[in-house]
Amino acid sequence: MKVLIIDEMHESITPLLTKLNLEVDYQPAIKRSEILQIIGNYEGLIVRSKTPIDAELLKNANKLIFVARAGAGVDNVELEELQKRNIQLLNAPEGNRDALAEHTMGMMLSLFNKINTSDQEVRNGKWDREGNRGVELMGKTIGLLGFGNMGSALAKRLSSFGCKIIAYDAEKTGFSNDFVEEVSLEKMQESAQILSIHIPMNAENKGIVNSKFISKFRALNYIINTSRGEVLILKDLLELLKANKIKGAALDVLENEKINSLSGEELSVFQELTKLKQVILTPHVAGWSFESYEKINIVLSQKIKLLVEKSNLL
Amino acid sequence: MKVLIIDEMHESITPLLTKLNLEVDYQPAIKRSEILQIIGNYEGLIVRSKTPIDAELLKNANKLIFVARAGAGVDNVELEELQKRNIQLLNAPEGNRDALAEHTMGMMLSLFNKINTSDQEVRNGKWDREGNRGVELMGKTIGLLGFGNMGSALAKRLSSFGCKIIAYDAEKTGFSNDFVEEVSLEKMQESAQILSIHIPMNAENKGIVNSKFISKFRALNYIINTSRGEVLILKDLLELLKANKIKGAALDVLENEKINSLSGEELSVFQELTKLKQVILTPHVAGWSFESYEKINIVLSQKIKLLVEKSNLL
Repeated sequence: MKVLIIDEMHESITPLLTKLNLEVDYQPAIKRSEILQIIGNYEGLIVRSKTPIDAELLKNANKLIFVARAGAGVDNVELEELQKRNIQLLNAPEGNRDALAEHTMGMMLSLFNKINTSDQEVRNGKWDREGNRGVELMGKTIGLLGFGNMGSALAKRLSSFGCKIIAYDAEKTGFSNDFVEEVSLEKMQESAQILSIHIPMNAENKGIVNSKFISKFRALNYIINTSRGEVLILKDLLELLKANKIKGAALDVLENEKINSLSGEELSVFQELTKLKQVILTPHVAGWSFESYEKINIVLSQKIKLLVEKSNLL
Repeated sequence: MKVLIIDEMHESITPLLTKLNLEVDYQPAIKRSEILQIIGNYEGLIVRSKTPIDAELLKNANKLIFVARAGAGVDNVELEELQKRNIQLLNAPEGNRDALAEHTMGMMLSLFNKINTSDQEVRNGKWDREGNRGVELMGKTIGLLGFGNMGSALAKRLSSFGCKIIAYDAEKTGFSNDFVEEVSLEKMQESAQILSIHIPMNAENKGIVNSKFISKFRALNYIINTSRGEVLILKDLLELLKANKIKGAALDVLENEKINSLSGEELSVFQELTKLKQVILTPHVAGWSFESYEKINIVLSQKIKLLVEKSNLL
C-alpha cells in the first residue's frame, strides 16, 4: 500500500507509516501537475493545506482510499468529490488543539494586559505604569462560537481563570460540562463580553461573523479569531474597532493571508488594522508548535492504522 | 480616627473608609517633607510604594496604629521601625494576585508562542509561519520559587494547562495540593524547565537569582520574573541568554526601574536585553489591572475594619 506525502511534515511521519507496512513516498516539493500524473499509483495521500484537493486532482486517483490532512481544518478539501469516489478523509485536530488553546490564551491575555504594546514602549525607553493597567479575565463571560476540538481545548484552559464560559455550536448539543454552559446563539449574544471563534470554514460559515452578527451582542468588548480568516469580515471588525464599539481584537487568521498581494480594499483594511494598538496579529500559527508538528503525525498514523486494518477486512 | 493617604488610589477608598467612621485625608500629591510635619495627627497611613516608610518618616508618628500598603510587596516599609513603635502593617496581596497571575500567564504564553515578535512581523508585512512555531506549556515542568499569594494564584491558572507544577518556599511547608507538588530547592533545580519567581524583596532575597543559583538548574530554559527586580541579577541573566543557556525570559520588573537614569553598566545591560527577541519586558504592571485597583481597596478596608475593631476593644 503506497502513500504520497505532498507537503513538508515532521520527520517522524516516514518511520511511523513504515511501521504500518506502508510504502511512503515523501515529496514535499512536488508540483500540482506532477501530482496529477502519479496520483493513480497511491492508496493514500497526505496533505497540509497548500494544495486544493478537488475533482481535477482526484480525476486519476483510482486506487485512493484515504486523504489525510496533517492538521485540523479541511477547507482545502472538496468533501463531495471525496464522497463521490468513496475516499475517506482523515484529519488530526487532536494533534494541534493544545497548541491552539495555548496560543489563543496567550493572544487574549497579551491583549488584555497590553503586553505587546508595553513591551515595545519599554524597549523604546518608556516606563508607563498607569497607562498599562490590564483588564482581568476573571469574572468575565466568554462565549465560544464552536465547541469542537479547539473550542473545548480552550475551555479547559479557561476553566482555571474564574470566568464564565458559555458555548454555542450549530452542529451539536448536550456538551455542557463542569465548567462550560451550552447556550443558544441568542443567549450568547445577550451576555458574552469576549467572543472566541472556533468554527470550521465552509459555505455556511463564510463571513458569518459580520457587522449584523456582532451588533446582536449586547456586552461584547473583545473578539478573538484563531479559526479561519474567511469566517470574519475584517472590514466590519475594523469599523467597530474604530468606533470603539469593540475594544480589542486578536487575530491569528485573516480573510486573505497573502498579505503582500492584497487587493486595494483588502490592503487598506489590513493597513488600518496594523495601526491599531488594540489589535494583535499573528501569522496563522495558533495550532503550530514544535510539539504539535509531531503530535499531528502520531494522531494521523493512528487513524491511518485503524483505516488500513478496516480496509483489509473488507 | 484619622487616616492619611499619600498616594493616588482608586476613588472607592474614601467612601469605603468613611463607612468605617474613619476621617479620610486624601493627599496623593503630598511631599515627604509635608508628611513629616503632619503625620503626628493620624492613626492610619495608607501608601503605595513611592515613599520609604522609615525611622525619619515615623519620628513624629505618635498616634499611628497602622500603615496600610495598597498592594502586595512591602519592601518600601522598614518593618523593624514599625515593630519598635508597635505599628501594624497591612497589605493587600489578595487584591492583585489575580491580576498578577493573569499577566504572568500572558507573558509566559506570549514568550512561548512568539506573539510579541510575530505581531511586529505581521505589522511590517512579514507572514512567516514556519519561523513562528511555539513551544507548548503542556507536559513541561514549571517551578515556582515562592508560594505565597502570587505563586499560588499562578499555580491555580497553570492547573488547567497539563503541566507539572512544583514549588519551593523558604518560609513555609505543607502546601502541596491537588495540582502543586511542594519540593526542596534542590529538587526544583533538578527538574524545572521554567522558573517563575514569586518571592518578596528583602535582605535575604536580594540578588538571590544569580549565575550560581541558575547554573544549578539542570533543565532550565525559561525564567519569568513578576516579583521584584532586585531579586534577579540582570547582568547574569543577560549572559545566560546570550550564551543560549537560557532560551527566553519574561520580565515585568528590573533591578532599577528608572530606565531613563540608569548607570553606565545598568544601561548597557538594559539596552542589550531590549535587543533580544527572546525577552519580553513590561513596566511593573503585572499586578495592575483596572479590577485590582479597586479590589485592593476592598481588601485593605476589610483589614482596616478588623484592626479598628480590635483596637477599640483594647
